[in-house]
Amino acid sequence: MSAYDDLMAFQRETEALGQVMGRLGWDQETMMPRGAAAQRSEEMAALEGVLHARRIDPRIADWHGAIDAGLLDDVGRANLRHIWRGYQRNVKIPAALAGEIARVTSMAQGIWAEARAAEDFAAFAPTLERVVGLRQEEAAALAGPNGDLYDALLDDYEPGATAAQLQAMFDALRPRLVALREKVLGADKQPRALAGDFDEAGQLRISAALASTFGYDLDKGRIDKAVHPFSSGSGQDVRITMRTDAQNPFDCFYSTIHEVGHACYEQAIDPRHLLTPLGAGVSMGVHESQSRIYENQIGRSRAFCGHLFKQMSAEFGDLSVGGADGFYGTVNRVQPGFIRTEADEIQYNLHVLMRFDLERDLISGQLAVADLPEAWNARFKADFGVAVDKPSNGCLQDVHWSVGLFGYFPTYTLGNVYAACLHRAMLADLPNLDVSLATGDTAPATTWLREKLQMHGGLYEPRELVAKACGFEPSEGPLLDYLEAKFSDIYAL
Amino acid sequence: MSAYDDLMAFQRETEALGQVMGRLGWDQETMMPRGAAAQRSEEMAALEGVLHARRIDPRIADWHGAIDAGLLDDVGRANLRHIWRGYQRNVKIPAALAGEIARVTSMAQGIWAEARAAEDFAAFAPTLERVVGLRQEEAAALAGPNGDLYDALLDDYEPGATAAQLQAMFDALRPRLVALREKVLGADKQPRALAGDFDEAGQLRISAALASTFGYDLDKGRIDKAVHPFSSGSGQDVRITMRTDAQNPFDCFYSTIHEVGHACYEQAIDPRHLLTPLGAGVSMGVHESQSRIYENQIGRSRAFCGHLFKQMSAEFGDLSVGGADGFYGTVNRVQPGFIRTEADEIQYNLHVLMRFDLERDLISGQLAVADLPEAWNARFKADFGVAVDKPSNGCLQDVHWSVGLFGYFPTYTLGNVYAACLHRAMLADLPNLDVSLATGDTAPATTWLREKLQMHGGLYEPRELVAKACGFEPSEGPLLDYLEAKFSDIYAL
Repeated sequence: MSAYDDLMAFQRETEALGQVMGRLGWDQETMMPRGAAAQRSEEMAALEGVLHARRIDPRIADWHGAIDAGLLDDVGRANLRHIWRGYQRNVKIPAALAGEIARVTSMAQGIWAEARAAEDFAAFAPTLERVVGLRQEEAAALAGPNGDLYDALLDDYEPGATAAQLQAMFDALRPRLVALREKVLGADKQPRALAGDFDEAGQLRISAALASTFGYDLDKGRIDKAVHPFSSGSGQDVRITMRTDAQNPFDCFYSTIHEVGHACYEQAIDPRHLLTPLGAGVSMGVHESQSRIYENQIGRSRAFCGHLFKQMSAEFGDLSVGGADGFYGTVNRVQPGFIRTEADEIQYNLHVLMRFDLERDLISGQLAVADLPEAWNARFKADFGVAVDKPSNGCLQDVHWSVGLFGYFPTYTLGNVYAACLHRAMLADLPNLDVSLATGDTAPATTWLREKLQMHGGLYEPRELVAKACGFEPSEGPLLDYLEAKFSDIYAL
Repeated sequence: MSAYDDLMAFQRETEALGQVMGRLGWDQETMMPRGAAAQRSEEMAALEGVLHARRIDPRIADWHGAIDAGLLDDVGRANLRHIWRGYQRNVKIPAALAGEIARVTSMAQGIWAEARAAEDFAAFAPTLERVVGLRQEEAAALAGPNGDLYDALLDDYEPGATAAQLQAMFDALRPRLVALREKVLGADKQPRALAGDFDEAGQLRISAALASTFGYDLDKGRIDKAVHPFSSGSGQDVRITMRTDAQNPFDCFYSTIHEVGHACYEQAIDPRHLLTPLGAGVSMGVHESQSRIYENQIGRSRAFCGHLFKQMSAEFGDLSVGGADGFYGTVNRVQPGFIRTEADEIQYNLHVLMRFDLERDLISGQLAVADLPEAWNARFKADFGVAVDKPSNGCLQDVHWSVGLFGYFPTYTLGNVYAACLHRAMLADLPNLDVSLATGDTAPATTWLREKLQMHGGLYEPRELVAKACGFEPSEGPLLDYLEAKFSDIYAL
């Protein structure tokens, strides 16, 4: 199997260089001196050039042609599938187009940030038109004459998923989520908000304890502060960041658990897949399923909230939220709001569904960039019952489109759908899970996820992996059932 | 000048990737999780492979051949000289040999560390033989049939220098240094040692203040703790590390000033040279001249010690060293000792001279690895008057040879020679320098160095650069005069 060995040796170096690129991104957000931005962008462009050349190296086709896949085991076949899919995708994108996308999106992020600060959508519109146009061009190159443009973009984040399939799922979600949202906001019983100042040292102590509680291995990772929480890296070096907000310690605690979910997934992958295409989370949707099940189904469960209530009371004194029972409601409090990243479990998905519909229309050309604010605001009124007051609370709130991330948003809700399916299967296997969670012991849950799903890395296709772990085909049903049951309980509906 | 532009665009990417490699090294010593070592070594090997391929890319020869150097300005000619020298050097080293050197020296470092901890030279000898053999082979490939092996290695660290030239300089240094050492140690007047525990927070405050005092720009740099102090990076991102020792705050303060000297040199280089061959310090000797003049001629001067005495007294209370005058002696105290890195300004050079002679004999084959301890111990007795008690105090003390750094040691003393020359020229231009230094104002000195030397980066050859800055040809005279005057004063000789 010399051609396979040669291909894998080449790929292993590419994966290693990809890890280096990830570390540069981490460094930029955590450690880089402020005055090094210009030099850093040249460093990253040079490394990206090296990576791009390797991803379209013609030797990949030669090796692939010389390999008899029938002689490979399941790991070998999965590696070959990943490598060949990536190669076929990358060679379809003209180098000039790839360079232009990199150049324009890098510039667009700054223009978006300025327009957002100035509440001036018109200042961003020409740039967004350019970004949409370039991604349409890329999608056309990828899809070929008969393919779907949006599917071609989506495939990069969620291999095998199609817009039509997601549309069916999201169409089933939306009416029940809208109805649940209305019932919850109209309920007589409303949880108290958390009030007061929570000192940073105390937040950091609880955050570190939570990371450990959920099984994050600091021997192969580290925690730093950054403006935005994120997880980065695979294999032996998976780092997370967090932040603190004196008025809102839940932001610190639940973003920590969220990033720990991402990081534990990477850390749990079978070491035999290290620095191979199988050595990283298999898709954005599956990745998000892990961060969300850690954060929500486990971390925001009544049982685990009882544990967190004790930790917070010990650290900060009386929380004045009506005991452990009140605290559970406070953690899961649903409130009207414009911002996706601050939304509760119900409204979060409504935000995502809206962006999915709007970005498909942008890519298909049915929606002009100039008409985006109007379309956004109308849809927001329909789903959330509120008029958007300013662009930073509306279509300028997320960075994604400015950096060309079309096809990425739906993976957030797909992750929630997968998380709920996995949670249902987990509870069937672990009927007494709440007993452990109430004492702050997440090991039964995280071990279940590690063995059923995380350890496999990229061995199976995303949907196949979730189906195997669950023992049933994933669908939106478990998420809806979970949300309706949970919030009916909290709000006494 | 299209060929020149193409060559420079290619080189600029190589320089950027070289900076990425440096950042990985920094990360490894400061931030990397303990369990990530194996993966990191693959990441660095992959990037090193990319860099090596670029350094011997045949297009360099094509571009070089197509350029009419007569049409270039001085910057263009200097860039071409650096690129062509590097290319010619790198293409002479067979790929298999380069790979074997990387593999063996990477492994040798661990074996050296274990042998050193076990005080067992025999356990390291076979590995050292292998390292010496590989570097001899490399030197032979570089030197050609008539060249000198040691010069071929030295040229990588100090372009243009030869062993014969250094030998003449060192032969003039050694007897006067040995004589000075004996007089100082036999003097009636002996400075007091610093005693007590110095709390870490106080050390960190003074260390940060010193970095700022010497002009280190934190907008384009950062300070972290590490096991060994070092400086890393060029251009807009030049980072340093430091450490603290409760019993020895001078270790923290003077290694900070030393690394700040290296870092300020990199930060001062004309921004037009950013990410070009001229955008980094021109040689190891010149680099060391900057770290040493910051540390010694400025930082250990009577005037600056007066300032540091006030800082330390304010932070730590009574130092019990006999006031500012006693403190100056304490800072510059000469003591018998085995370890190069802990040595004072006099004995430091004797350590370096010894390694220079021994390593030349190892590379020429006149000294067998098996006979190294005996040769080391005999020479140590001759120069330092003391018998070496164990290998970790003898020939196992430095990491350099285990990682194949033959030809590097002499640049330490060359740096001291250059520093003393620059200091003499600086005092001629700034006769009242002490008045500023006594108030903690180093700006006249650092500005002089920046304008005379640092800003030029790689524009001139090392020795030419120092001669231009000084206005005279560098020699060992100023170093000897400086040391004899300084220590005669302190020790009342």
